Amino acid sequence: MSTFEKLKPYMSKRMALTHALTAINWDNETEAPTNAVDLTSNAQGVLAGLYYESVISDEIKSVLLECKADDSLSFNEQAIVKSWLKSFEDLEVIPVDEYTAFNQLCVKSSSAWAKAKEENNYELFKPYLEKAIEYKKKFATYRNKDNKALYDIYLDDYEEGFTMEILDEFFDSLKQEIVPVLAKVKPVSKGLNDKIYKKEYPIETQKEFNKWLATYLGFDFDKGVISESAHPFTTNFHNHDVRITTHYNLHDVVNAIFSTIHETGHAIYEFGVSDEITQTPVGGGASMGMHESQSRFFENMIGRNKTFWIPIYSKLQETFKEQLSDVTLEEFLEVVNQAEPGLIRTEADELTYCLHIMVRYEIEKMIFNDEVTVDELPAVWNAKYQEYLGLTPKTDTEGILQDIHWSDGGFGYFPSYALGSAIAAQLYYHLSKEIDVEECLLNQNLKPIVEWLKSNIHQYGETKKMKELVEAATGEPFTATYYIEYLKNKYSK
Amino acid sequence: MSTFEKLKPYMSKRMALTHALTAINWDNETEAPTNAVDLTSNAQGVLAGLYYESVISDEIKSVLLECKADDSLSFNEQAIVKSWLKSFEDLEVIPVDEYTAFNQLCVKSSSAWAKAKEENNYELFKPYLEKAIEYKKKFATYRNKDNKALYDIYLDDYEEGFTMEILDEFFDSLKQEIVPVLAKVKPVSKGLNDKIYKKEYPIETQKEFNKWLATYLGFDFDKGVISESAHPFTTNFHNHDVRITTHYNLHDVVNAIFSTIHETGHAIYEFGVSDEITQTPVGGGASMGMHESQSRFFENMIGRNKTFWIPIYSKLQETFKEQLSDVTLEEFLEVVNQAEPGLIRTEADELTYCLHIMVRYEIEKMIFNDEVTVDELPAVWNAKYQEYLGLTPKTDTEGILQDIHWSDGGFGYFPSYALGSAIAAQLYYHLSKEIDVEECLLNQNLKPIVEWLKSNIHQYGETKKMKELVEAATGEPFTATYYIEYLKNKYSK
Repeated sequence: MSTFEKLKPYMSKRMALTHALTAINWDNETEAPTNAVDLTSNAQGVLAGLYYESVISDEIKSVLLECKADDSLSFNEQAIVKSWLKSFEDLEVIPVDEYTAFNQLCVKSSSAWAKAKEENNYELFKPYLEKAIEYKKKFATYRNKDNKALYDIYLDDYEEGFTMEILDEFFDSLKQEIVPVLAKVKPVSKGLNDKIYKKEYPIETQKEFNKWLATYLGFDFDKGVISESAHPFTTNFHNHDVRITTHYNLHDVVNAIFSTIHETGHAIYEFGVSDEITQTPVGGGASMGMHESQSRFFENMIGRNKTFWIPIYSKLQETFKEQLSDVTLEEFLEVVNQAEPGLIRTEADELTYCLHIMVRYEIEKMIFNDEVTVDELPAVWNAKYQEYLGLTPKTDTEGILQDIHWSDGGFGYFPSYALGSAIAAQLYYHLSKEIDVEECLLNQNLKPIVEWLKSNIHQYGETKKMKELVEAATGEPFTATYYIEYLKNKYSK
Repeated sequence: MSTFEKLKPYMSKRMALTHALTAINWDNETEAPTNAVDLTSNAQGVLAGLYYESVISDEIKSVLLECKADDSLSFNEQAIVKSWLKSFEDLEVIPVDEYTAFNQLCVKSSSAWAKAKEENNYELFKPYLEKAIEYKKKFATYRNKDNKALYDIYLDDYEEGFTMEILDEFFDSLKQEIVPVLAKVKPVSKGLNDKIYKKEYPIETQKEFNKWLATYLGFDFDKGVISESAHPFTTNFHNHDVRITTHYNLHDVVNAIFSTIHETGHAIYEFGVSDEITQTPVGGGASMGMHESQSRFFENMIGRNKTFWIPIYSKLQETFKEQLSDVTLEEFLEVVNQAEPGLIRTEADELTYCLHIMVRYEIEKMIFNDEVTVDELPAVWNAKYQEYLGLTPKTDTEGILQDIHWSDGGFGYFPSYALGSAIAAQLYYHLSKEIDVEECLLNQNLKPIVEWLKSNIHQYGETKKMKELVEAATGEPFTATYYIEYLKNKYSK
């Protein structure tokens, strides 16, 4: 038996438990009845414990070390071993009972968050958030061999090699460049917005259009599903089963369209992972930032591009004849590209988006530096929104409670959104030199674009790191330059 | 630590893996994309292996035997131990690799069956069916300590204590009594059927009505979900999460309604299981026959009862004004209660239903007695339909391929449907002596009926056996008498 063959039974078990947890999570977010959560979290907690055991054990460690020492492993096999050893090191220091308890907490916390948001009652969520923070600090402390700042440990989880030092610089340059542009941007007239947002778009018709649109972009419904959830997201079981959700609103046809485009970008990434590594621990995206770059690429570079809409805007108008026949393509584009400070991240435009991220990034730094208590969080949130966006939330629902991420302990995730936007701009710049993007869009042929992304990024899954992929695809290291240039160009017009 | 406390960690693990497998099954039947099946079956196979290991191991056996010897266990605890030891004995003789391979086969087989049915191509399904039969025969042989007939082993699995000897007698008496009644039944006029079936009932409106109807019957949407699948079914995670499916057809409003009532009957059973035993191995229904008695009870005794429809038929008419305003309550009842031989079991009326079951029962006997090959099955099926129902299927889709059950090796299940109908009639007879059912239905108050069933049947889950429950609830042993009387009375009118 080859060394790697020995690892395979462990890998099958690990992947099967990942599959099980993903299935239950997907179900919880999209379909499970409200009152199921407590009993279901029992099962999830136990499965998380089994998952933990399937990732780390003395047996597995010795097989992994044997594999590591074996020069005959293929590139993909080496990547699997490396990634597994990393998970091993991260997990083995966390006691299994704490890990299980934390996972059970997350399930309840997500549901408490949803209720708190619905009822605008931060107090309902606070005790869960407090516990989640406690656990995350404790876990980071367990993992902290090199005396790092705790928050840096989580930043590195989501984007290898990134630290507060790098991100402070990244965000500072964004702030310096964007705030002046934002000050000069003229808002879209209320009349024009009303022409689109004061109408009703029947949900069933929106669903049909979004399904068509996802297919147009390359979403394969023989290997995927679109469902609905309060907070749109993408999940995948393997490259033959990728799921996205969208959220529909009777008056807001634009929001669902751009959610669908965004999540389809994530999905196309997962569809593109090569068969050899799907259903392995490196079968997902390279990093959160890399993933987000693909969703932002489709949402912004493609989806908000005039040329993209030229051949298909008539399809949208035909679908919503009554509502959109008096809205010209130019007006539609003006509305979907408008920039104006708002309170809700997921509804933010491209220009102000990173300011929303900055608020969260700074708050997460404060949390992990013990500079803020959970009691103070709503006020800190509101103050930062006033500072960066010139607005103060009237309720916690549109303030501290708006995002799901902290409810399952996803600290360190938010910066990925901003990094993703920057990567997307960098990729787009270089892709445009190799492929005539405008012509593809005009000819309704997105394949060359998808293929470029697949061959440069998607196929590799997690076997290569973000920095490496970006450098290989663009010939230069990751940089925020193209993103800043892109925003300045777009919004100074 | 008490003896039973030692069992608990094993039980949590077993229940968590059951939860995982149920979640993936539910997803496969209702939502998963077509091309996912192969890769997903990898995960399912591994999880089935883990489930197997969570049920049987030397460690667990010694804890179970310790529990068995402990007099201080509560009634529920004893029932869990007894049931587990039974599963243990059934499973421990089957090699784990064969068990895993069989489970993987079932996943692929279900999907092959669906394709074969859709394309009317038995050949696509045949190799899977052949393998499934091979496995089931092999597994029965492993389990056969007492030199039983192999088919009796599976009959006993679904209904403890039932054998071919008992069922031959049961079905013979049904045949003797029903065939003469059927000969005298006058068919409903084509004109009346056309008044209902030649119209279109928009699917979305059907969904709304069925949701309302399920709620009316007692389905709790805070603890349950209605979805769609080709073949309606019920599944449950625990008593706070019960799922049913319905199948909608544009021209057939009746089919979805009675599917919903039927599955709601199953669901009400699962909702009614006591909190103490949900999420334990005895948290399901007492047996397949007992379960089927609850769905048939609601579908036939309640759902096809005139008094049930008196207060709510106007609701149905209002929902489908154009389609049903010229159909009187009496006409509607005539149509939903008509008896006429047909080819499709799931569309069969109460009178001919058990003839459909008889066909399957006799074929299963032949299969396990090695009296028929998979090549011969379609012809045998068709000949039996001609013999019992006077009709020969024109295609395998409406013949041998119509049911999902054999695709996952569910041999021995079908008789439960007929037993269930008989139990339902027996329960209804005795319930009617204690509760004024007609008054409940007229007053739109089904609670006393549900409560009677809950206190006599549902709460006990699998801690008591069907025979025991029926005897306690009705004061006499299980008998087919009430069923035969019910059918004769109903259809001689």
